Amino acid sequence: MAGNTIGSVFRVTTWGESHGPAVGAVIDGCPPGLPLGEEDIQGDLDRRRPGRGRFATTRREGDRVEILSGVFEGKTTGTPIALLIRNADADPAPYEELREVFRPGHGDFTYWMKYSHRDHRGGGRASGRETAARVAAGAVARKVIGRAGMVVRAFTVAVGGVGITRFREEEARGNDLACPDAEAFAAMAKVLADCRREGDTVGGVCEIRVTGCPPGLGEPVFEKLDAALAGALMGIGTVKAVEIGAGFAAAAMRGTAANDPLVPGGFLSNNAGGVLAGISTGQEIVLRAACKPIPSVAAPQATVDVRGEPRKIRVRGRHDVCVLPRILPVCEAMVCLVLADHLLRQRAVVGG
Amino acid sequence: MAGNTIGSVFRVTTWGESHGPAVGAVIDGCPPGLPLGEEDIQGDLDRRRPGRGRFATTRREGDRVEILSGVFEGKTTGTPIALLIRNADADPAPYEELREVFRPGHGDFTYWMKYSHRDHRGGGRASGRETAARVAAGAVARKVIGRAGMVVRAFTVAVGGVGITRFREEEARGNDLACPDAEAFAAMAKVLADCRREGDTVGGVCEIRVTGCPPGLGEPVFEKLDAALAGALMGIGTVKAVEIGAGFAAAAMRGTAANDPLVPGGFLSNNAGGVLAGISTGQEIVLRAACKPIPSVAAPQATVDVRGEPRKIRVRGRHDVCVLPRILPVCEAMVCLVLADHLLRQRAVVGG
Amino acid sequence: MAGNTIGSVFRVTTWGESHGPAVGAVIDGCPPGLPLGEEDIQGDLDRRRPGRGRFATTRREGDRVEILSGVFEGKTTGTPIALLIRNADADPAPYEELREVFRPGHGDFTYWMKYSHRDHRGGGRASGRETAARVAAGAVARKVIGRAGMVVRAFTVAVGGVGITRFREEEARGNDLACPDAEAFAAMAKVLADCRREGDTVGGVCEIRVTGCPPGLGEPVFEKLDAALAGALMGIGTVKAVEIGAGFAAAAMRGTAANDPLVPGGFLSNNAGGVLAGISTGQEIVLRAACKPIPSVAAPQATVDVRGEPRKIRVRGRHDVCVLPRILPVCEAMVCLVLADHLLRQRAVVGG
Amino acid sequence: MAGNTIGSVFRVTTWGESHGPAVGAVIDGCPPGLPLGEEDIQGDLDRRRPGRGRFATTRREGDRVEILSGVFEGKTTGTPIALLIRNADADPAPYEELREVFRPGHGDFTYWMKYSHRDHRGGGRASGRETAARVAAGAVARKVIGRAGMVVRAFTVAVGGVGITRFREEEARGNDLACPDAEAFAAMAKVLADCRREGDTVGGVCEIRVTGCPPGLGEPVFEKLDAALAGALMGIGTVKAVEIGAGFAAAAMRGTAANDPLVPGGFLSNNAGGVLAGISTGQEIVLRAACKPIPSVAAPQATVDVRGEPRKIRVRGRHDVCVLPRILPVCEAMVCLVLADHLLRQRAVVGG
Repeated sequence: MAGNTIGSVFRVTTWGESHGPAVGAVIDGCPPGLPLGEEDIQGDLDRRRPGRGRFATTRREGDRVEILSGVFEGKTTGTPIALLIRNADADPAPYEELREVFRPGHGDFTYWMKYSHRDHRGGGRASGRETAARVAAGAVARKVIGRAGMVVRAFTVAVGGVGITRFREEEARGNDLACPDAEAFAAMAKVLADCRREGDTVGGVCEIRVTGCPPGLGEPVFEKLDAALAGALMGIGTVKAVEIGAGFAAAAMRGTAANDPLVPGGFLSNNAGGVLAGISTGQEIVLRAACKPIPSVAAPQATVDVRGEPRKIRVRGRHDVCVLPRILPVCEAMVCLVLADHLLRQRAVVGG
Repeated sequence: MAGNTIGSVFRVTTWGESHGPAVGAVIDGCPPGLPLGEEDIQGDLDRRRPGRGRFATTRREGDRVEILSGVFEGKTTGTPIALLIRNADADPAPYEELREVFRPGHGDFTYWMKYSHRDHRGGGRASGRETAARVAAGAVARKVIGRAGMVVRAFTVAVGGVGITRFREEEARGNDLACPDAEAFAAMAKVLADCRREGDTVGGVCEIRVTGCPPGLGEPVFEKLDAALAGALMGIGTVKAVEIGAGFAAAAMRGTAANDPLVPGGFLSNNAGGVLAGISTGQEIVLRAACKPIPSVAAPQATVDVRGEPRKIRVRGRHDVCVLPRILPVCEAMVCLVLADHLLRQRAVVGG
Repeated sequence: MAGNTIGSVFRVTTWGESHGPAVGAVIDGCPPGLPLGEEDIQGDLDRRRPGRGRFATTRREGDRVEILSGVFEGKTTGTPIALLIRNADADPAPYEELREVFRPGHGDFTYWMKYSHRDHRGGGRASGRETAARVAAGAVARKVIGRAGMVVRAFTVAVGGVGITRFREEEARGNDLACPDAEAFAAMAKVLADCRREGDTVGGVCEIRVTGCPPGLGEPVFEKLDAALAGALMGIGTVKAVEIGAGFAAAAMRGTAANDPLVPGGFLSNNAGGVLAGISTGQEIVLRAACKPIPSVAAPQATVDVRGEPRKIRVRGRHDVCVLPRILPVCEAMVCLVLADHLLRQRAVVGG
Repeated sequence: MAGNTIGSVFRVTTWGESHGPAVGAVIDGCPPGLPLGEEDIQGDLDRRRPGRGRFATTRREGDRVEILSGVFEGKTTGTPIALLIRNADADPAPYEELREVFRPGHGDFTYWMKYSHRDHRGGGRASGRETAARVAAGAVARKVIGRAGMVVRAFTVAVGGVGITRFREEEARGNDLACPDAEAFAAMAKVLADCRREGDTVGGVCEIRVTGCPPGLGEPVFEKLDAALAGALMGIGTVKAVEIGAGFAAAAMRGTAANDPLVPGGFLSNNAGGVLAGISTGQEIVLRAACKPIPSVAAPQATVDVRGEPRKIRVRGRHDVCVLPRILPVCEAMVCLVLADHLLRQRAVVGG
């Protein structure tokens, strides 16, 4: 079975190609009575939209969301919520030469191997464009978990090899990358400027933090909360690694140091990252997702075509230098979707 | 809904607690006509079993698997395969003092917060004992994907802070950790010996490699192959981070370096780790899972009890020093389960 | 979890309310490479549309389907197929008086009890309007199973108490009810004319026949083919009973008469209706669905309002006299959806 | 994907063959804290067991259920509940001649066509034996819905052509068929005695009634409560038709007669059978399931073997004359499973 649906109780199905008429999502299982309007969604879509900030492409995506069902007189009805975002300003002409050639680092080759018939224009379904639908659905999920007190925020914590050395949330509000370390941001900005000048791209790391998550969310044994979150983040095309809490660093630790001692009212540390045995502890949830560089680089690259013949290609058009910061609302959306689903799942089994 | 099932077409449901009468699994969706006997499963179970090797606990688990259904005259019938592993040698007495006290780093606290009623003996469902059922089911999955030419192997690539500096598969066969770097193994062995002497534990990193995976497996967009693999590995209690291919290193790379160029017959590099846009490329799949230290340490630890009162506990009994190498067959099993499912899913949609 | 999705491998999610902007469906899991255009769908939609035939309402639904994704250059791509049908000519004014009053026989009361907030206009999600999306998706399923040789056709076999006494498929083509007994049709037409004159409505029975179904479809034990078909048909709002093959008559038979003897090349009878032990036999599949009368009658009826106070209502507007024949393409669609799903499921498990 | 699981939140997977070592079920999603012991299950199993009553086979099934997990100190823990029932007294020898011959009316032919490899002994997975696992799981579901006030009871309302003419629940307690009409029972008993003497079998009709169901259960649009119940009942091998409320009779009614008028405190009639627009009304739920005759008759029958050659067979061994009354607890179990699932699903979406 195909994989365009996420969630068990709060279920989201997305659809749409980069250069088709539209992208969209259907949300099934949203509780009734939730106040919801298009304005609740538009803000997150705007953060994802290209053409914002210094490091972005200049393609304009007219991302206006329409709610087509499931909301009546300003409140959800419990029936499916259909979200529609028309595609605009999508010129397929530059892609004509890619009809039979596979761009390195893109899904062109694998879609061809899987389906034998593909929409090559702008990556089709594999385009980052598809994430607009996730962000729209994620905004609804954000409202669901917001009622339970949860807040989800993503930050840029590394670009290229430059990482943060401190985390000050207020500093993240002062820069285009939502980087919580103003000094590191300056160095990151230089990396990005260098890349742009060289026609190259660069990777980075996103950190997602969740406050207000109640203890008890997550389903042993295969659908642990951290398993679901890791799968959701790895389901973003650009992500190549995910960690929670101490993450890779935990592999170098001793047990006496890694365990988070409990005291009345909470824990003394958070190496677990807010999830223990797959179930939320009530602490802050801390996740990091490593993003590879955008594969669309200006330099000519070796590749093959659909007949297996060697080819050289240059990817044209204006592209972002780095998925940061545009990926931040996408990461937030995926985390919101998982948390909304697990919040309702817990309610199913345990009530409340 | 609860999360004790994994897979869509090749579906596995596990059950059982550490100190209950048995653990087991039901496999639904295994193709008919596959030769299968208990001996196909026992080998993997034996690798997972404690009491083997120098770094292991001395508890003996009598892990004999019984096939109760779904196999007739040595071949699968297409009906559910029920696997049963009786628990033996499980003395609950040492756990009596843990009835109302939460061990740091264990699921005791979160299970209590989630369910309000729990089997405290040996961690109950949150025990590593549960993974025996996964390994048994994974052995069946291994046969399914083996028919398609896939081979899944796991290696120890780091223990504590000591990592490998080269990968020689033949060297992995010569040591208890399946470490592909004999020199690094010596250093790792020293770390483990130190930990044991100090009554402490230590984390490590497992690398899983898959050869023979055909291109085309994985389902866009939420159930990408790497998303499914990451979720499956993160669904192992001890795992705190997962990466594929270049992983976290990709976040520091330039696009011109990270892209894997295509040439007739394949790729020139494998930063992608065998998955592009969530679909297998046909290259080797390379995954790493970071494992935290086993939380059962000898030193007294601060914690609380079910009433929230501060307590000191010492975890008794003999425990492993490190989840490596016992976690290796568990990681392999999870990867086999995902691949078997996606192999059959691809067949559903595209045929073949 | 909510229930707006049907199917496991060929999965369809529908959305939309009677008086919202649109209704639609997303199909996930359709095989790639299938020729598909809007014209393949429009025909079934037109059969479902009101305003056709002698026994229909005069409301005009501008049922033009748009394919928004999943099709490229006239063939499916394997990605989700989004179908959109704008609602037109839907005047909510007549429904204003129903905002707080429950129409007997409609979902008004139960939606209110379930969700506490509902779109009362024209039944909202519970409206027959919702079936337009099913019919659109069913038309795609029909193409999938058509490639495997299956043909699905529905007939009117009873209206009010008048049933057919013979089955001649060619006679069904000559009348508005698709009734395979021209004499019975004349009597049915009289019943319908009487009902219309009296401002009343009447029930009927639909028979669905499937030719060309290969043996082997259906999944023991809970998702037997007949179980799936029965559930799908009973999932149509108007259906109160479903039978397969001899159906209720089988309950009065002896085993020696009910068993269908096998001979080389087939069976000597078809009391089973084409399904044995939940798996298709290769014979014709024969199903019947009993439809209740449309609840919108002209006569004043006793009911209550949202406060539980007694009320009298008269349902205004022009309504059909009987769901036959408009329900026929809906029944066909549901059967096509189930068969497409089970065809692909069989391929997943057994190949081919 | 295979179909051995039922339910979304309260999920049950069954396994096992007639002549394998055991049959069983795993329940995932049962709420924690529910008092549960083997004695809660044994009663329903005993009602299903052969060898009881005048009309039964003499094979003794030693149906003792073991709870292997998910229960601790007499209460469920929220983890999977594994139920095991060992097969006993199952002699495969009489079935040896059926290894290559298909019994008419049985699943022998279709299993062969589907899987190409089957356990022919006693029908394997297609045996009525499989329903023991359903009954065991259903007994747990019965406890879940019992806490919400629901009671599920099944009755024999027809055998052969003999049906009840009145419904007096107290009379059902006085006879082996649980027939609520003592006079009709006498006539039914005569039909059964005639059949037994003739070595023939006969069908019948079961009616299932649910009291105490709260309004609001059922999920539009595909997983309506009546759709789920119809699918569940049709998923019993012997059932060929299902109706709710007025059922087939509704197809002959006028709308003015079929609508159930609402008055303060309830409805004036129950043609709907307790479900309107797929959602429970709070009235009694009334379902009927038509059961075909047991296909194992003494008379020689025409059939074919696996090579398609014509054969004559006589089915040996002692078999029941009618699935009534043994099917009653199976029907109850299926209804309990559906209701438990929908009760928890409603809680997921709406809370409470």
